[in-house]
Amino acid sequence: MKSSSMPRLTFWYEFASTYSYLSAMRIEALAEAKGVEVAWKPFLLGPIFGAQGWNTSPFNLYPAKGRYMWRDMERQCTKYGIPFEKPDTSDGGWPRNSVKAARLAIVGLEEGWGKAFSRAVYTGEFVDQADISADGFLHDCVAGAGGNPASALESIASEACKAKLRANTDAAIAARIFGAPSFTVGDELFWGDDRLEDALDWAACG
Amino acid sequence: MKSSSMPRLTFWYEFASTYSYLSAMRIEALAEAKGVEVAWKPFLLGPIFGAQGWNTSPFNLYPAKGRYMWRDMERQCTKYGIPFEKPDTSDGGWPRNSVKAARLAIVGLEEGWGKAFSRAVYTGEFVDQADISADGFLHDCVAGAGGNPASALESIASEACKAKLRANTDAAIAARIFGAPSFTVGDELFWGDDRLEDALDWAACG
Repeated sequence: MKSSSMPRLTFWYEFASTYSYLSAMRIEALAEAKGVEVAWKPFLLGPIFGAQGWNTSPFNLYPAKGRYMWRDMERQCTKYGIPFEKPDTSDGGWPRNSVKAARLAIVGLEEGWGKAFSRAVYTGEFVDQADISADGFLHDCVAGAGGNPASALESIASEACKAKLRANTDAAIAARIFGAPSFTVGDELFWGDDRLEDALDWAACG
Repeated sequence: MKSSSMPRLTFWYEFASTYSYLSAMRIEALAEAKGVEVAWKPFLLGPIFGAQGWNTSPFNLYPAKGRYMWRDMERQCTKYGIPFEKPDTSDGGWPRNSVKAARLAIVGLEEGWGKAFSRAVYTGEFVDQADISADGFLHDCVAGAGGNPASALESIASEACKAKLRANTDAAIAARIFGAPSFTVGDELFWGDDRLEDALDWAACG
């Protein structure tokens, strides 16, 4: 059931973000149980990190934190029953390039297949060692989610689609977002998968 | 009840750390319910942050994260029923100088009044706008916790006591700790008050 009178939460996620994976897999069931409608909003952390002088993920900049994060992800996935295989990061290709996936998600969210597409991308990234920037992989994710891969992949090359992703990122900055996942309920900001339940409670109970 | 056969967890805390306050107030009741013995271990984040190029708290270096943290602390304290008054940080005196408090906690933990002393310091810092580096305040915290303030304050000037705090910080680095609070169970590291319950479960259930 969806209605404009349902409490509403915005879920800000980044495909290159490990902890966003946890929330993407958990949020719909939890939101349904609490009667909260979720607006999925993909954005890019790169410009936000860049503005504070980071040219890569903080998990690369601070290796002790990075090593911890992978172990913590293993434990959290076990706790929540979410499959997880640590991506091969030995080639230095971490974080992944998430731009095309984010643009496709925006198309998909407008057309009704965006949530399933987003979960498929995350599963490729965190279970199947997929290259989430590869057209072939993205093609399959769109198809599996019920979209038209050819037209979706064509549309993300348009200036209009690129502008929508930039607008999402600008809106994240305006919402004082500094990491992913984040959740907003009106002006109230929650950061991190660890605050997902609190954010939903805030939406449901005010 | 304490016995060497109880499962054991080490609680690494820093008096200048906001989230350590939450754990200091929550840990004993949770640990008792799970039958876990807690070793309190004060340490200093300064040398750890300094090694990665930070000359102050990340909450100062990244203002958006800092503003969020204070709001998050308010919400978390409300959720857990822990009193909280945001310290006045307008004088730039944040984070607080925690060196003397940490040394006194080491003395107190050896003499049996360290946990109550630690909670009193945190309450001063996060409820009563106290200067936790002031001898008068620390004197009262020692006395209230059941220690001898004059002898405790004298002993923290000794090289032996200073060396113990340096040893705790070195042990934190060896345990791959990069923030506070942290919890260790054998080689397993948990970071943040959000992982307190998981860390206790790990200790209790292996």
